[in-house]
Amino acid sequence: MISKLITEIKKKNAPVVVGLDPQMAFLPKFLLDKAIKEKGETLEAAADAIFEYNKGLMDAVADLIPAVKPQIAMYEMFGVPGVAAYKKTVDYAHDKGLVVIGDIKRGDIGSTSGAYAIGHIGKITVGNTEIAPFDEDIVTVNPYLGSDGVKPFIEICNSCDKGIFVLVKTSNPSSGEFQDKKIGDKTLYEEVADTVSEWGKESMDGDYSNVGAVVGATYPEMGIELRKRMKNTYILVPGYGAQGGKGSDLKGYFNEDGLGAIVNSSRGIIAAYKNEKYASFGEEGYADAARQATVDMIEDISQAIG
Amino acid sequence: MISKLITEIKKKNAPVVVGLDPQMAFLPKFLLDKAIKEKGETLEAAADAIFEYNKGLMDAVADLIPAVKPQIAMYEMFGVPGVAAYKKTVDYAHDKGLVVIGDIKRGDIGSTSGAYAIGHIGKITVGNTEIAPFDEDIVTVNPYLGSDGVKPFIEICNSCDKGIFVLVKTSNPSSGEFQDKKIGDKTLYEEVADTVSEWGKESMDGDYSNVGAVVGATYPEMGIELRKRMKNTYILVPGYGAQGGKGSDLKGYFNEDGLGAIVNSSRGIIAAYKNEKYASFGEEGYADAARQATVDMIEDISQAIG
Repeated sequence: MISKLITEIKKKNAPVVVGLDPQMAFLPKFLLDKAIKEKGETLEAAADAIFEYNKGLMDAVADLIPAVKPQIAMYEMFGVPGVAAYKKTVDYAHDKGLVVIGDIKRGDIGSTSGAYAIGHIGKITVGNTEIAPFDEDIVTVNPYLGSDGVKPFIEICNSCDKGIFVLVKTSNPSSGEFQDKKIGDKTLYEEVADTVSEWGKESMDGDYSNVGAVVGATYPEMGIELRKRMKNTYILVPGYGAQGGKGSDLKGYFNEDGLGAIVNSSRGIIAAYKNEKYASFGEEGYADAARQATVDMIEDISQAIG
Repeated sequence: MISKLITEIKKKNAPVVVGLDPQMAFLPKFLLDKAIKEKGETLEAAADAIFEYNKGLMDAVADLIPAVKPQIAMYEMFGVPGVAAYKKTVDYAHDKGLVVIGDIKRGDIGSTSGAYAIGHIGKITVGNTEIAPFDEDIVTVNPYLGSDGVKPFIEICNSCDKGIFVLVKTSNPSSGEFQDKKIGDKTLYEEVADTVSEWGKESMDGDYSNVGAVVGATYPEMGIELRKRMKNTYILVPGYGAQGGKGSDLKGYFNEDGLGAIVNSSRGIIAAYKNEKYASFGEEGYADAARQATVDMIEDISQAIG
């Protein structure tokens, strides 16, 4: 799967992924009003509005980018109807030819991680029929439980040509609380990085592994170090834009050939219409604002790594 | 919420929770056959069968135990219909007067953890209507991202009288890979335990905090140490039974008053009919087998802590 993602990155010339994280505060009011008119003040209405919002966004940016990254929390927030909107978003993204990175950050004991892996990137058999329940292409995974919480995902990467990005160093302010703690002569995130590299050897797909890593844009010096440390590991970089990461900080996350990393922006793109810079698009023009913000982001990243 | 759980534990005289983890291998065939007859070989059929299975189990054990712990992975494995069966299970457990511990192990950056917290233990406002999307009473949380990934859950514990159990030392074989690593003079799990204790001070509810900890039954010497280390922290203990934890190992997880811990068993109860000891109940008697296994487990734990 990582080779497919790389092909798409090269084709679009954009190591950029748009995070589809539809919080209530970003949702254009006219979409919610319309849905409430049809379905009342219900979770179903909110879910319909979210999906319409995502559709507009994907229609506007699909030709520019290789992938989208829906954050499942923003859908679980709306209960079962929200999760149904997540699944519709995954399917619509596939219709648009986009790679789908499900930002689910799951991780549990072996048999339970196995269930998550089947549900999100694998297949379940009901009677004699095989079904792919959520069918993302790549998902994010939490490493706190160790190898037997991650290996069931890697097995499915191999059997179904899928990928994972394992949390190494996250973008949030308190990520250092545990991740930066020193274990002997390395930090916990370095220990996790080395383990991710090892896991990755079991799922090579061209020059890179289907087992990638998450390293936040907000810690550029660690990005440089981790790029060197995990030679065959693709890096998913969240935290660009609204969280504070800048294009000029990100050169070190990439290899000299311009590959090795893909940068995510969520709020900065999907809520661009709320940003002064793109305010002239107005709420009704939220999708066009997102398109312009995507063009600007690709330009910013390209200049930085150029 | 922890005081409500303790009240129920005392009332039933059972520091025991039944894990509702309906894997395909445990599901009685007659339930799946019936569902497939009605809905074909679909995720909807599997989800219907799972819910019927859970209903039978809860009808059989609800008077014996204070709480159930559905593991959401086992429902996500069946896609959107599976998640709908999870929600129906939560609601049915509430109808039966059971406390619901949603084993979701979520954890993300602040705003995203906030979305999970709202979705699972909080309320979302659509228009002017407040809705509790999943409405579990307590959920499990992964600490790898640090305070700002956990605090949004604690805020909702306080505003909505809910609880969380944070992963400290998990029950799986490779849990030590990162959790046992030495950070200065303590291990990572001890560092997390101390942080959980600190977080807990922000959400006291009687003698114990709404912020509890997960410590696996499979590491009894660590259970003893962590019981002393986290004085006001309730401990959720997975790994009893099928994973290898025995009642006689668990005394150290409890305080002298018999409180301080609640022990989970999943497979050992819900798939008891597949165990030689309870085989005479047969597949059709899966619920009665589960009831007998629950009675036996309560006896085993009571003797140990007695």
